[in-house]
Amino acid sequence: MKLDPTQMADWQIAEAAEQNIKPIQEIAAKLGLQEGELIPMGRNVAKIDYNTTWNRVKDLVPGKYVDVTAISPTPLGEGKTTTTMGLVEGLAKIGKKPVGAIRQPSGGPTFNIKGSAAGGGLAQCIPLAPFSLGLTGDIDAITNAHNLCMVALTARMQHENNYDDERLAQIGIPRLDIDPDRVQMKWAMDFCAQSLRNITIGKGGPMDGYEMESGFQITVSSEIMAILAVASSLRDLRERIGRMVVAYSRSGAEVTTADLEVDGAMTAIMLEAINPTLVQTIEGNPVLVHAGPFANIAIGQSSVIADMLGTRMGDYLITESGFGADIGYEKFWNLKCRYSGLKPDAVVIVATVRALKMHGGGPEVKPGKPLDAAYTDEDLELLEAGCSNLIAHIEIVKKSGATPVVCINGFYTDTPAEHELVRKISEANGARCAVSEHWLKGGEGAVELAQAVVAACEEEHAFAHLYNLDLPLKDRVEKIATEIYGADGVEWSDEAEEKINLFQADPDVSKMGMCMVKTHLSLSHDPDLKGAPKGWILPIRDVLIYKGAGFVVPVAGAIKLLPGTGSNPGFRKIDVDVDTGKVTGLF
Amino acid sequence: MKLDPTQMADWQIAEAAEQNIKPIQEIAAKLGLQEGELIPMGRNVAKIDYNTTWNRVKDLVPGKYVDVTAISPTPLGEGKTTTTMGLVEGLAKIGKKPVGAIRQPSGGPTFNIKGSAAGGGLAQCIPLAPFSLGLTGDIDAITNAHNLCMVALTARMQHENNYDDERLAQIGIPRLDIDPDRVQMKWAMDFCAQSLRNITIGKGGPMDGYEMESGFQITVSSEIMAILAVASSLRDLRERIGRMVVAYSRSGAEVTTADLEVDGAMTAIMLEAINPTLVQTIEGNPVLVHAGPFANIAIGQSSVIADMLGTRMGDYLITESGFGADIGYEKFWNLKCRYSGLKPDAVVIVATVRALKMHGGGPEVKPGKPLDAAYTDEDLELLEAGCSNLIAHIEIVKKSGATPVVCINGFYTDTPAEHELVRKISEANGARCAVSEHWLKGGEGAVELAQAVVAACEEEHAFAHLYNLDLPLKDRVEKIATEIYGADGVEWSDEAEEKINLFQADPDVSKMGMCMVKTHLSLSHDPDLKGAPKGWILPIRDVLIYKGAGFVVPVAGAIKLLPGTGSNPGFRKIDVDVDTGKVTGLF
Repeated sequence: MKLDPTQMADWQIAEAAEQNIKPIQEIAAKLGLQEGELIPMGRNVAKIDYNTTWNRVKDLVPGKYVDVTAISPTPLGEGKTTTTMGLVEGLAKIGKKPVGAIRQPSGGPTFNIKGSAAGGGLAQCIPLAPFSLGLTGDIDAITNAHNLCMVALTARMQHENNYDDERLAQIGIPRLDIDPDRVQMKWAMDFCAQSLRNITIGKGGPMDGYEMESGFQITVSSEIMAILAVASSLRDLRERIGRMVVAYSRSGAEVTTADLEVDGAMTAIMLEAINPTLVQTIEGNPVLVHAGPFANIAIGQSSVIADMLGTRMGDYLITESGFGADIGYEKFWNLKCRYSGLKPDAVVIVATVRALKMHGGGPEVKPGKPLDAAYTDEDLELLEAGCSNLIAHIEIVKKSGATPVVCINGFYTDTPAEHELVRKISEANGARCAVSEHWLKGGEGAVELAQAVVAACEEEHAFAHLYNLDLPLKDRVEKIATEIYGADGVEWSDEAEEKINLFQADPDVSKMGMCMVKTHLSLSHDPDLKGAPKGWILPIRDVLIYKGAGFVVPVAGAIKLLPGTGSNPGFRKIDVDVDTGKVTGLF
Repeated sequence: MKLDPTQMADWQIAEAAEQNIKPIQEIAAKLGLQEGELIPMGRNVAKIDYNTTWNRVKDLVPGKYVDVTAISPTPLGEGKTTTTMGLVEGLAKIGKKPVGAIRQPSGGPTFNIKGSAAGGGLAQCIPLAPFSLGLTGDIDAITNAHNLCMVALTARMQHENNYDDERLAQIGIPRLDIDPDRVQMKWAMDFCAQSLRNITIGKGGPMDGYEMESGFQITVSSEIMAILAVASSLRDLRERIGRMVVAYSRSGAEVTTADLEVDGAMTAIMLEAINPTLVQTIEGNPVLVHAGPFANIAIGQSSVIADMLGTRMGDYLITESGFGADIGYEKFWNLKCRYSGLKPDAVVIVATVRALKMHGGGPEVKPGKPLDAAYTDEDLELLEAGCSNLIAHIEIVKKSGATPVVCINGFYTDTPAEHELVRKISEANGARCAVSEHWLKGGEGAVELAQAVVAACEEEHAFAHLYNLDLPLKDRVEKIATEIYGADGVEWSDEAEEKINLFQADPDVSKMGMCMVKTHLSLSHDPDLKGAPKGWILPIRDVLIYKGAGFVVPVAGAIKLLPGTGSNPGFRKIDVDVDTGKVTGLF
C-alpha cells in the first residue's frame, strides 16, 4: 500500500504502516539490548529495564547527541516531533544507527485539539493507538502517585481536625497542623478538565474530609512528571519524591510527602515508570518514549534516563525540547544536560516558511478559516522580516556552544526562492540549513537534513552551561532575560523579590536548578509580540519552588496548569472499529 | 527457602516465591494458548487476546465451573480469595488442570486497609507488586474513560451556557440543555478519597466550567467497570458504553455518552482492558485477572469474558463472587451466568470457625484489641448457634441447583470438635464439607477440598436462574427478598415504587437484569443482625438504573460510592527497596 500523506490522515498512515511493523525484539536488537533488559508491554511495545541496561552500558562512549528545537511556535505548527522522527529516518538512510527520544503525549491535548503527538505524515512512530492512548501507563502512574499524596494530605487534615492530641498519639501520628490556605499541590487528571480547575472539596460532614478550596492540574504538569524527567536512578527518584513539599503548617513549616508517610507508596506506584518505553518509527528505527510535555513548571522534555541510555545504544540520539529555543532549549541546556552530564553536539531549529511569515507580521490565523494568501503565495519580504525570530533562536543555540542546523520543514506551497532566502539568512548567521521533506517522503526526504546534522556534529564545538549553580538566583534570571530572551532587564514584583531573596539565603535552594515560566509564543513575555522584540523589560511576578524536582521557578506570565476542552473537541472523531479492534480518527 | 506463613507476611512469601516464578509463556502453554494469543505485559504478566482466543475455543466443551462464595462477612475475614487460590492449587495437586479467575484489586483498599488482594499465606497469586499496583492498567483505563465522559459533559454544559444557538449551530452541536441537578455520574478516582465525595466544581469565570455540585466515586464502582464485567465482546462493550445515561436534560430526556459524542473515544481507551490478564499461583497454576470488586451497583466479580475463556482452557474454572452467597452468589447466579451462558457445577461456601462464632453472638471484634477468648478457645455452643448463617447460605446455593461444598478455612486455634460440628451441620443440610489448610500448606493443604469439589461437580445437579427476565421487576425483588434473604416481605418507599412502576412500563428496561444493593454484613438489610435473622421486612428506598450495564438497581441500604481513608492507612508501610527495586510492605 502506497503511503501518501497528501491523501491520508496521520492515523491512516500509521494503521497502514503497522501492517509491516517489526517485532519489538528486532528493534531491541538494533540497540544491542541483552536478555532480560527488554520488558515486552503489549504488541510491538516494550519497556527497557533501566537499571540492568545502564549498569551494562554506562562506561561506553556516548554517541552524538542532537536536540530538536524550533522558532517561537505559531498556530500554524512547525512540526518538531515530525522533524525528530524524520531526522531519525534520514540518519538511518545514510547508514547511521539513530535512536529517537520523545515524550509520551498527554491525554488532555490528545482528546482535545492535538490528536496524536507521534509526528506526522511519513515521519511518525508506531503503533499509534497505544502510543496515543496511555502507552505503558507512566502518566497513569503519575496521576495515581500524585493523587495518593493528595488523599494522604486531605485525610490527614480531616483526622487531625476530628481527633484530639491523645487520639493522634494513640494512632502514632504527630499533629502536622496543615494550613488549609497554604496547600501547594492540586489533584491531578490528565485531561483538559477546566471545570475541575477551581473546586471546593470536603463538603458534607466530618467524615467527608475537611472543607476547603482546591483544584486539579493536568497530570503532565505534576511535580512528579518533572521528577521523572530529571531523575537519574531509582534511588534518586525515591529521594526526590520524599522531598516534595505538599503544604505548609500553620507555623510555616514545610509538610512533605515524607511527613505524610506516603513517599514510599508513591515510589512503589512509580516503580515501572522509571523504565523508558521502546517503540519504532514507521521505517523501523528505535524510539524511546519517556516523561511528558508541559514545559512551564517542568522541563517538558523526554527524560534524562532515556537520553543517558540512548546515547550509549546508538551513534546518534535525537531528542526534542518543547516550544522554541528560548524556553525548551534553554531548559535542555541548563537543566536537563546538567542532570545528565550529556553535551549536545548539534541543535536542529525547525522552521516553516509559513510560520516565519507570521513572525514577519503576517495576518492573524484562525482555525476553520482559509489561510491568507500571504502564507500560500510567495512573499519574500514578509519571510525576511520573520527571519528575525529565526536569527534570535540561532543565536541562543550558538551561545550554548552547540552547532545550530536550521531545518526548513518543507510545505508544498513553499517556493524555491523562499527556501533559498531562509538558507542564505541561516548561513549568514552561522547556521547550517537544510530543507527537509520527511513529512512527504520519510527518511528519503530527510537525507539532506541528516547530512547537515552529521556535518554539524563533526564540527568543532564547546558546549557550556549559561551559568553555574553558584551564580545568585536573581543574577541567573537577569542573565536569561537579557542574553536569551533579548530583554533590557528584569522587573521584580515585591512578592517575587522577597521570595527570591529568601531562597537565595537558603544554601540548599540557592544551588537548585532554575526553570523559567514564560509564554512560548514570543521571545518576550507578551504572546502577541512576534519576530524578535526589542526594548522591553521581563516582569517576574512570583517565584515558586519545587524541592522534589529541584527547581526554583520564576514566573514571568500566567501559569495555567489545567487547559480547557474546547467546543469542538477531538474526541468526537475517535472511535473503534469493533470488527478489527482498530482505533480510528486519531487525527 | 522455606515459605512459612506463620513467620512471614504475605508480601514476604510472595517475594520469596517469585524467585522461582515460571515464565508466563509456560503458564500460557498449560492453557493451550497459541501463537499471537498471548500479549506479554511486563515481567511474568500477560494479557490474553480475547477475540482471537475466543474464536478458537468457543466451540470446545466447557470444563467444570466452580464459584467460591462465603458466609456473611465478618471483620474477622473468611478468606475467599485465599480459598480460591488454594482450591486451584489443590485441584492441580490431584491431577486436574485448574484455572483461577479473580478480580483486579482496587487501589482504594490496597492503600488503605486491605493491602494485597491476591490471597494469602501459601495460597496467593504472583507477581504480587504488579498485581497490587495497577497490573496491566485496566482500572486506569476505566478511570480515564469515565473521566473523559465527565470532561465531555461538563465542557458541553459550559459551552452551552456561554454560547447562543447560532454559535452552537456553527460548531455543529445541538443544544442538549443538560439539567445540572440531574447529572447521574460523578468523577472517578481509584482511591478512598473521601474529601472528593461532595464537591463544588466550575468555580471561577465562564471559562472555568459551569458551577455546580459534583463529586467523585471510586473507579471500581463505575458503570464502566460493571460493563467490563458483563460485556461479551468488543461490539457489546462499544454498544453498552454508548447506552450509558450521563444526565437528563431540563425536559427530562436522557443524555447519553453517545449524545456527548464521547462513546467512541471511551471505547478506544478501554480497548486493551477487554483482554483478561494472566498471572500464576505460587505453585505455578494459571489465574485470570479481570474486572474489579464493588458488588453493590455492579456484580463486583471477575468478568464474563474471563470465565468464558477459562472454562474452555482448563478442566476446572474456579472463580469467586464477592461478599456472601446472598449478595455475590445471587448476582453470579442471576446476572453473570445469564450473560455468560455458563452454569456452575459446584459452589464453595467459605467459613471459618471464628466467623461462625461471631454469627452465633460472639463479642464484638475491634481492630488493635486482642481477640476475645470465645474466638480462640473451643466453644461449640457459640459455633452451633452461628451455623444458622452457614445453613442459610447453603440453602441459597441449593436453590440455584448447584452443589454446595462448605470449606472450613482452618485456623490453628480451631479444635477437631469444632471442625466436626461444622461438618456434621453442613452434611445434615445437604452440603459436602472439607477442612482446608491452603493458607498454611498451599495445594497440599487443599487436597481434601479439591476432592470434595470434584465429587460435587460429578453429582447430578440442575442449575436454573431464580427468575426469568419476563418476571415483573417488583416480583423479582420480592422473590429475592423472601427466598434468598429470608425476609417476610418488601416495603417500598413512594419514590422507589413510583420508579419501579415506571421502569416496568418500559419494555426495554423491564427485561434488564437486576442488581440488588444491600449490606453484605447480614442476610437482612441491618448490618448488626448476625446469624439468620427472621421476622423482618426489606425496605427498598430507591431504584437506580444503569442502561449501559443493563441493570435495574433496587437500593435496600445506603450506597457509599467512595469509601474513606482511615487514620492509620496502609500506605504508611509500603515502600521500595531502591537497591533491588522490590516493593516492600504490601501487607
